[in-house]
Amino acid sequence: MPQPDHISVLGVPDAASLDDDLQAIWAKCVEKLGFVPNVYAAYSLRPQRLRNFMQTYNEIMLAPSGLSKLEREMVAVVVSSANRCYYCLVAHGAAVRRLSGDAELGEMMALNYRVAKLPPRQRAMLDFTWKLTTTPWLIDDVDREALRTHGLSSEDIFDLAETAAFFNLSNRMASATEMTPNREYHRADR
Amino acid sequence: MPQPDHISVLGVPDAASLDDDLQAIWAKCVEKLGFVPNVYAAYSLRPQRLRNFMQTYNEIMLAPSGLSKLEREMVAVVVSSANRCYYCLVAHGAAVRRLSGDAELGEMMALNYRVAKLPPRQRAMLDFTWKLTTTPWLIDDVDREALRTHGLSSEDIFDLAETAAFFNLSNRMASATEMTPNREYHRADR
Amino acid sequence: MPQPDHISVLGVPDAASLDDDLQAIWAKCVEKLGFVPNVYAAYSLRPQRLRNFMQTYNEIMLAPSGLSKLEREMVAVVVSSANRCYYCLVAHGAAVRRLSGDAELGEMMALNYRVAKLPPRQRAMLDFTWKLTTTPWLIDDVDREALRTHGLSSEDIFDLAETAAFFNLSNRMASATEMTPNREYHRADR
Amino acid sequence: MPQPDHISVLGVPDAASLDDDLQAIWAKCVEKLGFVPNVYAAYSLRPQRLRNFMQTYNEIMLAPSGLSKLEREMVAVVVSSANRCYYCLVAHGAAVRRLSGDAELGEMMALNYRVAKLPPRQRAMLDFTWKLTTTPWLIDDVDREALRTHGLSSEDIFDLAETAAFFNLSNRMASATEMTPNREYHRADR
Amino acid sequence: MPQPDHISVLGVPDAASLDDDLQAIWAKCVEKLGFVPNVYAAYSLRPQRLRNFMQTYNEIMLAPSGLSKLEREMVAVVVSSANRCYYCLVAHGAAVRRLSGDAELGEMMALNYRVAKLPPRQRAMLDFTWKLTTTPWLIDDVDREALRTHGLSSEDIFDLAETAAFFNLSNRMASATEMTPNREYHRADR
Amino acid sequence: MPQPDHISVLGVPDAASLDDDLQAIWAKCVEKLGFVPNVYAAYSLRPQRLRNFMQTYNEIMLAPSGLSKLEREMVAVVVSSANRCYYCLVAHGAAVRRLSGDAELGEMMALNYRVAKLPPRQRAMLDFTWKLTTTPWLIDDVDREALRTHGLSSEDIFDLAETAAFFNLSNRMASATEMTPNREYHRADR
Repeated sequence: MPQPDHISVLGVPDAASLDDDLQAIWAKCVEKLGFVPNVYAAYSLRPQRLRNFMQTYNEIMLAPSGLSKLEREMVAVVVSSANRCYYCLVAHGAAVRRLSGDAELGEMMALNYRVAKLPPRQRAMLDFTWKLTTTPWLIDDVDREALRTHGLSSEDIFDLAETAAFFNLSNRMASATEMTPNREYHRADR
Repeated sequence: MPQPDHISVLGVPDAASLDDDLQAIWAKCVEKLGFVPNVYAAYSLRPQRLRNFMQTYNEIMLAPSGLSKLEREMVAVVVSSANRCYYCLVAHGAAVRRLSGDAELGEMMALNYRVAKLPPRQRAMLDFTWKLTTTPWLIDDVDREALRTHGLSSEDIFDLAETAAFFNLSNRMASATEMTPNREYHRADR
Repeated sequence: MPQPDHISVLGVPDAASLDDDLQAIWAKCVEKLGFVPNVYAAYSLRPQRLRNFMQTYNEIMLAPSGLSKLEREMVAVVVSSANRCYYCLVAHGAAVRRLSGDAELGEMMALNYRVAKLPPRQRAMLDFTWKLTTTPWLIDDVDREALRTHGLSSEDIFDLAETAAFFNLSNRMASATEMTPNREYHRADR
Repeated sequence: MPQPDHISVLGVPDAASLDDDLQAIWAKCVEKLGFVPNVYAAYSLRPQRLRNFMQTYNEIMLAPSGLSKLEREMVAVVVSSANRCYYCLVAHGAAVRRLSGDAELGEMMALNYRVAKLPPRQRAMLDFTWKLTTTPWLIDDVDREALRTHGLSSEDIFDLAETAAFFNLSNRMASATEMTPNREYHRADR
Repeated sequence: MPQPDHISVLGVPDAASLDDDLQAIWAKCVEKLGFVPNVYAAYSLRPQRLRNFMQTYNEIMLAPSGLSKLEREMVAVVVSSANRCYYCLVAHGAAVRRLSGDAELGEMMALNYRVAKLPPRQRAMLDFTWKLTTTPWLIDDVDREALRTHGLSSEDIFDLAETAAFFNLSNRMASATEMTPNREYHRADR
Repeated sequence: MPQPDHISVLGVPDAASLDDDLQAIWAKCVEKLGFVPNVYAAYSLRPQRLRNFMQTYNEIMLAPSGLSKLEREMVAVVVSSANRCYYCLVAHGAAVRRLSGDAELGEMMALNYRVAKLPPRQRAMLDFTWKLTTTPWLIDDVDREALRTHGLSSEDIFDLAETAAFFNLSNRMASATEMTPNREYHRADR
């Protein structure tokens, strides 16, 4: 059984010891998903940071935006592919499969997004995502113009950039803590 | 005058049009710093995201932690050096100068942290920061053990990782929006 | 449906036009697997090269060796992960799942093999594989000694090296021809 | 005498112990070339793999193709230059010198192919070779179109790709076994 | 006080022991600058090499050329930024500030020259500088043509190349000897 | 004839138009070597820079030093290998062959110095050279200690560093001007 049996190598507090608001979220996760995502458990070592993380995450991934929820998950997976982040690839690969109903799309995003036959707008978004992740210091007006050509507004570019930027944060938290994804993600929506 | 005259290439809303809570923060910044940091102005294009950003930022950089505020700023600058992020190097380089009272320390963090003669604990923290920023997929137990050897607890490692991870987010927002630092930072605490 | 609908962008001959020996292999694949692997179809553009490819492949992956068949498939996937080869990751990821009965092992090999808790012998084999794939000019006695320490004989090192080397060949054929994996691999053994 | 005195660090069986078919090939090599290429000796540790290697090699380098034999050797050397493979650079550098009658061409292919003033078709082939070797995951339609513009057919692109792919295999075998080139290559056709 | 207190880790001879011509230069430096630049002190370990270094330096940086002195200093800083050379960034960053009267220009050159809004001719010069520093083997006619388009003559291209090449030398001397910049540079012309 | 027929793409003045001191050097080169090295011809576009270049070159490569002349040429070739500089590999590869009387040594230095079986002192020197060339910002005390362990004094380390640094200069001049080596080097001392 080569998958690690820890949630985070930094350790995870007993859920029963958490503040009430967090326990309520735990309960809601179990109700909706059947489990508490390990990223929350790992972050609960530092409760206020967890609260901020969840609030930021929810705004970026779920609030109204010119990018669809599927597109935001595609961005999440492409960032995680560049950073070879196991946790995020497994968890958000599952989200791409679920939201798209296309298991192969999830695989393509995780393994090499360039093989997917995507609408040019989405391809431009993912090319921007890759460059912003791997060589942010080279982003320039040409890159932003490519997005505007495909109809992205300033707000859309902001949201795209922040989604990519956020997973550059979360990938590093997952790597730093050797976060292990919940087993449920692996088989979901195949 | 080669420094750009925009705050963000995505545009910045008129401050007078912002919600009251944000205008109050603007006023407080002017009172305390003499200016509104351009990262806030740039983020105000998406007000709720700005609120989350400030809340996360304040927790990571100012809340109690096993890492001193200066150490957190040093981490911020080393991440930004790896990512060659002009905005963050200028703004947080100034913070290192201010908190340390050592202008050269700020320069060393921005240009090549390896030249600084630091206590081994800080050097280990910055080596971890550099690796987590540039090759997060290679972080392993050996890297974490090096931190524990210098006395970092699990919570300290969490805080170190999240500080580094956060500036991997903010560097990318600055690059994506071509954020220009406030001129005040350049001369401060030289 | 973002997965491409071609098998190879260089085109694939009508199976009915192939020589009898190849048609017999096609029939045997359908009987055993339910389909003809697309790598064979893509290679049939150049029939003698296909014959050589299959013969080499069968020897490397199936003939007696000090490396188990599962270990050889793990090597195949790790090479393909380094080279971000979609075809080989999908096809050989499925093989790892099938031979190990552990779907997560397949994912770990494809996404970042370092997260897997493997016996040290297998970890050493995969570290060698990664280095031989990404910086072959740096392989030296230290790398080979690490393998011998874990019990690999000269013949085992030869077989490990040739397995890794072979997928460095096949990854490049898949990328050069934009080879698309058979859909059957995606869901197999999840 | 800094050149190693081994043929392969994994050891080489006594030629007299090899199967008759291989001994016959050894004899033919001595007759034609004056020596047995060390790559064959190194591979004879695993006789069936040697047979497959020779058969694949002969088809790729000698069978009819839209690429001339010299062009295939140029590809071999450029791959080996990217991978800094001493054995293949020495052996195939000599082949370029012999087939072209131009010693400098061999040097340019080995050291930096971009300095050579080549027909645009050959330059396009070598640019494709370099990219397929160093970043195979980035190969796309634009790269293939550049080849078609210079008259390469689908079969030609296949052959070019397989030649490059094959030396990505053989370079890694040479590096993994620290294969030493026969001294005869060094002075040949200077 | 994290800045090192040595001038060079290889040691520096007592100034009083130097030949008269060098002592005269030392005196002139003190008179003009207020101090002897540490690069001279570090180089005085090998006096004749110091003489050659100064002569080359003076010709490249001060002799008549199609590039202004400020442009040459900008090139110096951009090379040093690519090579993350602390000594040269501090010393020549100060020179850019002094010659331009624009402290921010010095910061932009040191941290990421791409953020500066420069005349296209200067931007082309710095793009050439960056490429010549980081991947000299890829420089080709297209790169030189970009310079000619902005009016650079053959002599100007020569001078630009030699300036960039020279700082690739001096950066490596500074890194090899861990040269520490004189403190005076830090605050100058802020 | 794929070798370029220019000496430098920036053009070369008529030798008859050069100052007397340079014409005298030209004559001496012809007398001693049979030809004027093209690097001198290329540099004669800017005569005073040529004088400085020759003086620096002669001191570094020919003056008394703890490094033998052969060792300095080995360093020159290894730097040029890292930078894939055709001119310097051809010219200084010939020098290694001549000074060592070992043609294979020249090839190993140019293609991958790690295959050579060198005395540990020389291997340490070349490892330092490679690192100083490719990642100068990572050089630290450990690297210098490795040299001292093999008996290098501070002056020897200085000379080693300056030799490597100088070829980082000359490689870039050769690449920037597309300098073509004299044909005589190719066949010399094979």
